[in-house]
Amino acid sequence: METVKYLLTEDRMPTAWYNIQADLPVPAPPVLHPGTGQPIGPADLAPLFPMALIMQEVSTDRLIEIPEEVQAIYRQWRPTPLYRARRLETMLDTPARIYYKYEGVSPAGSHKPNTAVAQAYYNKQEGVKRLVTETGAGQWGSSLAMAGAFFGLDVLVYMVKVSYQQKPYRRALMEAYGARVVASPSEETHAGRMILAAHPDSTGSLGIAISEAVEVAAQDPEAKYSLGSVLNHVLLHQTVIGEEALAQLEMAGDYPDIIVGCTGGGSNFSGIAFPFIGKKLRGERDVRVVAVEPAACPSMTRGKYAYDFGDTARMTPLVKMHTLGHDFVPPGIHAGGLRYHGMAPLVSHLLQLGAIEAINVQQLETFGAGIQFARAEGIIPAPEANHAVAGAIREALRCKEEGVSRAILFNLCGHGHFDMQAYTDYMAGKLRDYEYSEEEVAMALAGLPSVGG
Amino acid sequence: METVKYLLTEDRMPTAWYNIQADLPVPAPPVLHPGTGQPIGPADLAPLFPMALIMQEVSTDRLIEIPEEVQAIYRQWRPTPLYRARRLETMLDTPARIYYKYEGVSPAGSHKPNTAVAQAYYNKQEGVKRLVTETGAGQWGSSLAMAGAFFGLDVLVYMVKVSYQQKPYRRALMEAYGARVVASPSEETHAGRMILAAHPDSTGSLGIAISEAVEVAAQDPEAKYSLGSVLNHVLLHQTVIGEEALAQLEMAGDYPDIIVGCTGGGSNFSGIAFPFIGKKLRGERDVRVVAVEPAACPSMTRGKYAYDFGDTARMTPLVKMHTLGHDFVPPGIHAGGLRYHGMAPLVSHLLQLGAIEAINVQQLETFGAGIQFARAEGIIPAPEANHAVAGAIREALRCKEEGVSRAILFNLCGHGHFDMQAYTDYMAGKLRDYEYSEEEVAMALAGLPSVGG
Repeated sequence: METVKYLLTEDRMPTAWYNIQADLPVPAPPVLHPGTGQPIGPADLAPLFPMALIMQEVSTDRLIEIPEEVQAIYRQWRPTPLYRARRLETMLDTPARIYYKYEGVSPAGSHKPNTAVAQAYYNKQEGVKRLVTETGAGQWGSSLAMAGAFFGLDVLVYMVKVSYQQKPYRRALMEAYGARVVASPSEETHAGRMILAAHPDSTGSLGIAISEAVEVAAQDPEAKYSLGSVLNHVLLHQTVIGEEALAQLEMAGDYPDIIVGCTGGGSNFSGIAFPFIGKKLRGERDVRVVAVEPAACPSMTRGKYAYDFGDTARMTPLVKMHTLGHDFVPPGIHAGGLRYHGMAPLVSHLLQLGAIEAINVQQLETFGAGIQFARAEGIIPAPEANHAVAGAIREALRCKEEGVSRAILFNLCGHGHFDMQAYTDYMAGKLRDYEYSEEEVAMALAGLPSVGG
Repeated sequence: METVKYLLTEDRMPTAWYNIQADLPVPAPPVLHPGTGQPIGPADLAPLFPMALIMQEVSTDRLIEIPEEVQAIYRQWRPTPLYRARRLETMLDTPARIYYKYEGVSPAGSHKPNTAVAQAYYNKQEGVKRLVTETGAGQWGSSLAMAGAFFGLDVLVYMVKVSYQQKPYRRALMEAYGARVVASPSEETHAGRMILAAHPDSTGSLGIAISEAVEVAAQDPEAKYSLGSVLNHVLLHQTVIGEEALAQLEMAGDYPDIIVGCTGGGSNFSGIAFPFIGKKLRGERDVRVVAVEPAACPSMTRGKYAYDFGDTARMTPLVKMHTLGHDFVPPGIHAGGLRYHGMAPLVSHLLQLGAIEAINVQQLETFGAGIQFARAEGIIPAPEANHAVAGAIREALRCKEEGVSRAILFNLCGHGHFDMQAYTDYMAGKLRDYEYSEEEVAMALAGLPSVGG
């Protein structure tokens, strides 16, 4: 049996994003000002974001229209294909029906352009000249660099140093698009210099790179800051994935029993899952939703649900989320996009509400799953996406053990073409797993702020 | 104006390949046995290829049915999109209408799986256990490795040494699919040892790697040889590209005035152009067709139309083609897939008939074109594909100069995700152009065999 593709015609591409804030039984806790401990308002965020995105951040409208200019760019690669992984099912000898949505068909190779294009559009509309951001593995940075090239915006990217070194070709891609890329922590910012003074050999983290980008954006009146995950409006833009998947599964005459997504900041997970979770919250249709995070950065499975800073230098507002503490610097695993100390507040809230589950998996299991997937389906997944593949394979093997056929849907959020050093290292036996003791986790959490606790 | 996509529904995917041999005003010259100088027959090729492919090699049927099993795999990524490059047109400020067919959406990232899947299928049908091949940049080797994984065939790849060193991640991809990859020239074959004895520092060439692969396949009764370009049946399998493009341009209400393709062995060029050239040969519709080759390996523009060996160690039959001589070793340019001393006999024959034109372009122009394309369209092309981009941009700028709107179609045969070192070197000013003197070309041609001359 060959893998089957379900492709929507362009006229069935969603014209609005789905906002899960409309369907929450209780709203997520407010974002707090770190100085006053009081909820912040739109004006507090105006130095960093254009007003259109701030309004999306706090909106409770269920559907938010996708601007025609953004739709026109989406249509270059959207609707993306949904596949029934028949060859993988055969290889696993499972009665499960495995579906994957493939976001690697975007020019930048992942789901990230869904929000990069939207963010570049709204910034351009409000007269912004420059976007400053951070990137881990480079999926986000390259997507914003591409969107900047499309809209004529300068893009400056602080790239986590370990990824800057591990993935020189992601950097080359950003530079080919015309962006400037700086290894973080850098000497270019106060935040970077502080970190380097304390830890000269720091390999960086998303938390540190965010501090640098926020600092630069806040000081330049023609620049704004752009974030590739975590925030409500970013998750919103990704829901086009799940909305398409809903329509495609209808074409397939099926509905998922289980949805699996990998989680770093939470954006691709939210993209595939929120439209389905919305139906669950509205009582229309039940579904099990499993978030898969790396054992090396287990914010939901071993962290604490608490108010914390989004960045290491404590420049951001306080958000309530599952966190390992803003000082936590995860080891240099190859799934650089998942090396974030916290989790999107909306995802954290859903976990707290019991609407989703979370598990963590070890690095070696994820790469083994990725190789198996490549041999079956031909696509070599990004190391981040391998976490979703590993989670889906676990569920498929459970179906086999139990002799039950369930429909499993996962998001293959990007390809691994720029991550082949990771595969080379894996095949050469050079990668290892990570296991934290209770003491290590407790120590990481000791630095949590007391505000809002 | 945004880039526009023309996408065929799956039910409009071609069900037969188009065989240009049916429409040639005079047949291409026969393939000769190097010993006797007489035309060879199917039995002579049986040690290397399955009979189904040999029969396709000599067929003059206009349409050859694509087996349902091959169609089923094609459908994972086919029909591929055709784009109207509106953002590139705007950037160039040209009245030209630029269309590109994008083959980089295949899991291996290029057009090569179109024939890799077909070849693996026919070999599997005839009981073959192992496929042996060569690869330059690795586009072909990774495609055959993937197809081997799908059909349960072992794959052994002799990879041109300079690409083996320049592109370790293409090698990693092949190994992830389960193939074994050997740098060529190697110590594993008689042909490789002969080359290394004479040139210990040889960076290899496609001609040498073919010698090694042919030698190994010929000696193993369970193995066959597989070639990624040049041969009639390989070009045949690629015509699915042009057949789709015909239907997509009909959707767009347009027809190309000019078709541009890059040429190494000739397979992607043939894939996009042959269905259109067929209409031209049948007197149905005219079109200008331009083959673009690298100045560093100018077989059609500076070589000779003569009988020559397909490989360096003179193990293959003699084919009449535009050639720089089987001893020619091109410099280590980054468009490794175009580093072949000869040209597909069918493409050479069409050039001789005046049905197509050929030009050569320098490396720096091609990378400049690739960067411009990436900023406009978001897709970073393979260095090979940059030759087609450069050719298309030349034609678009000519339209601007002349104030004429022409429709230009080119094949973007693959993405450059595994070629970012080349872009890094280009952006750092480390690449250079190559120009041969008349004497150098004459010297390369001096080794041509006298047989069939």
